[in-house]
Amino acid sequence: MTSSATSPVLDTARRAKAAAAVLAPLPRSVRDGALLAIADALRARTGEIVAANAEDIDKARREMAAAGGGRRAGGSSEALIDRLTLTPERIEAIAADVTKVVALPDPVGEVLRGSTLPNGLELRQVRVPLGVVGIIYEARPNVTVDAAVLCLKSGNAVLLRGSSSAYASNTALVAVLRDAVQAAGLPADAVQLVPGESRDSVKELMRARGLVDVLIPRGGASLIRTVVEESTVPVIETGVGNCHVYVDEHADLDMAVKILVNAKASRPSVCNAAETVLVHAAVADAFLPRALAALAEAGVTVHGDERWQRASDAVLAATEEDWATEYLSYDIAAAVVPDLDAAVAHIRRWSSGHTEAIVTRDQSAARRFVALVDSTAVMVNASTRFTDGGQFGFGAEIGISTQKLHARGPMGLPELTSTKYVVTGDGHIR
Amino acid sequence: MTSSATSPVLDTARRAKAAAAVLAPLPRSVRDGALLAIADALRARTGEIVAANAEDIDKARREMAAAGGGRRAGGSSEALIDRLTLTPERIEAIAADVTKVVALPDPVGEVLRGSTLPNGLELRQVRVPLGVVGIIYEARPNVTVDAAVLCLKSGNAVLLRGSSSAYASNTALVAVLRDAVQAAGLPADAVQLVPGESRDSVKELMRARGLVDVLIPRGGASLIRTVVEESTVPVIETGVGNCHVYVDEHADLDMAVKILVNAKASRPSVCNAAETVLVHAAVADAFLPRALAALAEAGVTVHGDERWQRASDAVLAATEEDWATEYLSYDIAAAVVPDLDAAVAHIRRWSSGHTEAIVTRDQSAARRFVALVDSTAVMVNASTRFTDGGQFGFGAEIGISTQKLHARGPMGLPELTSTKYVVTGDGHIR
Repeated sequence: MTSSATSPVLDTARRAKAAAAVLAPLPRSVRDGALLAIADALRARTGEIVAANAEDIDKARREMAAAGGGRRAGGSSEALIDRLTLTPERIEAIAADVTKVVALPDPVGEVLRGSTLPNGLELRQVRVPLGVVGIIYEARPNVTVDAAVLCLKSGNAVLLRGSSSAYASNTALVAVLRDAVQAAGLPADAVQLVPGESRDSVKELMRARGLVDVLIPRGGASLIRTVVEESTVPVIETGVGNCHVYVDEHADLDMAVKILVNAKASRPSVCNAAETVLVHAAVADAFLPRALAALAEAGVTVHGDERWQRASDAVLAATEEDWATEYLSYDIAAAVVPDLDAAVAHIRRWSSGHTEAIVTRDQSAARRFVALVDSTAVMVNASTRFTDGGQFGFGAEIGISTQKLHARGPMGLPELTSTKYVVTGDGHIR
Repeated sequence: MTSSATSPVLDTARRAKAAAAVLAPLPRSVRDGALLAIADALRARTGEIVAANAEDIDKARREMAAAGGGRRAGGSSEALIDRLTLTPERIEAIAADVTKVVALPDPVGEVLRGSTLPNGLELRQVRVPLGVVGIIYEARPNVTVDAAVLCLKSGNAVLLRGSSSAYASNTALVAVLRDAVQAAGLPADAVQLVPGESRDSVKELMRARGLVDVLIPRGGASLIRTVVEESTVPVIETGVGNCHVYVDEHADLDMAVKILVNAKASRPSVCNAAETVLVHAAVADAFLPRALAALAEAGVTVHGDERWQRASDAVLAATEEDWATEYLSYDIAAAVVPDLDAAVAHIRRWSSGHTEAIVTRDQSAARRFVALVDSTAVMVNASTRFTDGGQFGFGAEIGISTQKLHARGPMGLPELTSTKYVVTGDGHIR
């Protein structure tokens, strides 16, 4: 059913598909054994990994020096270098995380539905691996190990397409992973790095329908948009978070200030950070000065509508672009709305569908907000920052889906599976 | 987040999105009321629908006469006319089916997961409608009502893009549906026909990402391939069924003959009909003559490998194309394989991943076949024909997904939903 065209990327995908067929029926003990072997190998070969990582860091520093240093998209040079860096301590932490995944429940084989039909047929819907999972991601080389381990735990083969800035690190890590899984009795091709550093290799991966079962892009909005627009392989859209905090007429204003500052400023670079605050007009006079003081103290710049601008000279004028922007920085857009429904309308218009929060004491306002807001997660009197696989108790997370198909919200191990119907009879015909 | 381009199709999609926002929070009683109103309206306005249908039939007959009549792809002219025809009896049957859907459990609001997290946050994962569902389908105008009713029951707005050969019938049916849902308090735009009879309108629908949440193509392989290749809207691939029956070394051969004839010949035009039979070499001598006699009696032409050809002069020589073909007719491809693993390899290579059956008395052969075959449904000692929402007890079916993402197998009401996380605290911050 798939094209017979050939290329290094398609050959990699074909080997992944063959490996997935071997992997799918293996029992949990073999898959868990491979994970433990990975943890051991990461520890044993730390020197090799750190040396490869040093190459990437040198290259990044040279490129930054050539570009004049200073700030770039995504943060300062030093922040980029920090994200790229693997130290022995960080590798030990990655290995420790791998052993935690071993302990998580096995999603494969779980029976989701089962019944005996009136004609005596026995029907079971059973979780099975997806097959071949492709991950396209940026910067952090720890994702290489995280993603591979979650895919293997759920019985999938994985194709890793990391950032070219981490190519040497990823190559070293994947060599360690492949050796480890092979020693544990899995096909080495269950883990593969997609060859090529250019964008073309991503394009080929996106057209490998029939070989790759799902692509998960993790990274900036433009990467995700490209994959969503151009891929014929099914995609799970992740991570863009233009999140809102709505302070209701009946909010506890102390609580609202605390949640707002936490949602915005506890870690502005992540997708579950708040990007816009909406305030009910009835509490604007009381809330705005307190919010402005607390945000200023946290180092946050406010881009506000006229009402917010009147409340402080420090407030910059917001444009439509501010409503649409995921700042990922110490900036927040701010508006006053006439009522809850206007807040919902604003969110429906501008949100990326990640996470929205309401602060209110009023039960019916909370119910209405939850019912009308069409996002992955809706928080009532809690910070947007809680939308996270770890916080939700999933034990691991491969990304946060902001689409409605297959998986929505933090994706744990069950979200890396599909299902199969098994129907058993004794000669049943229709 | 969506394009501001305008066109009749995009305007329709925008109205659907607005209707979906109204529809999503409505309680079950209102949605069920709309379904009952639809059943009543179909009965009350039968004359109008039959008259519109007569136009389509006249047009089809004229086109067939101009083309010289006779057989066309998809069956004889009369079979096409029959599929297109709406009689008062058929409309009554459609209305009766609508009232059956009313009685089905409401998927919306079901809590799939729930827990209180260690920090006291209450976490619930709740089923919510997908939003806007687009259905692209061929021929049968009854699909217009079926699809609309299943979407409304699950809280979704629906965009219907039927065959141009049923345009007058679909226009009349959608007018009846819209009047009925509006009278019941739902927005009329919860049900819309996509304007335009040309292929361009399908193309626009496929690019309406952000307005349409999912597209479900129902029809021939080429329609489905086009949608899968070109759509930026997420797609659920349905229905292409190149299904296999494997007769194992340890099969009860009487049972195998009965299952094979049922799987192939009870209704060859449907996707769960068998298209290839694979026989273990150890039972070939005993099985082939009996199978050939029974298949001949059922009017089936066999396209076989050398072993099958040696067994009867009536067997045509099979080529690779036969292994790949979904005949949808009284034809079957046939091969002898050295063992179960060879059967699995053949299936992995050629199957569309719909349904495969094994006939065997050997428990470990059954287990191995189930584990290794990567298809939507695997039958043990039962006909492939059982892969069906009605047979599985789902009460209704919008199609059979052959993809692994979101839904796999017969899709009932739960498969027309997504989920939302609702997280409740009392001022929780991280």
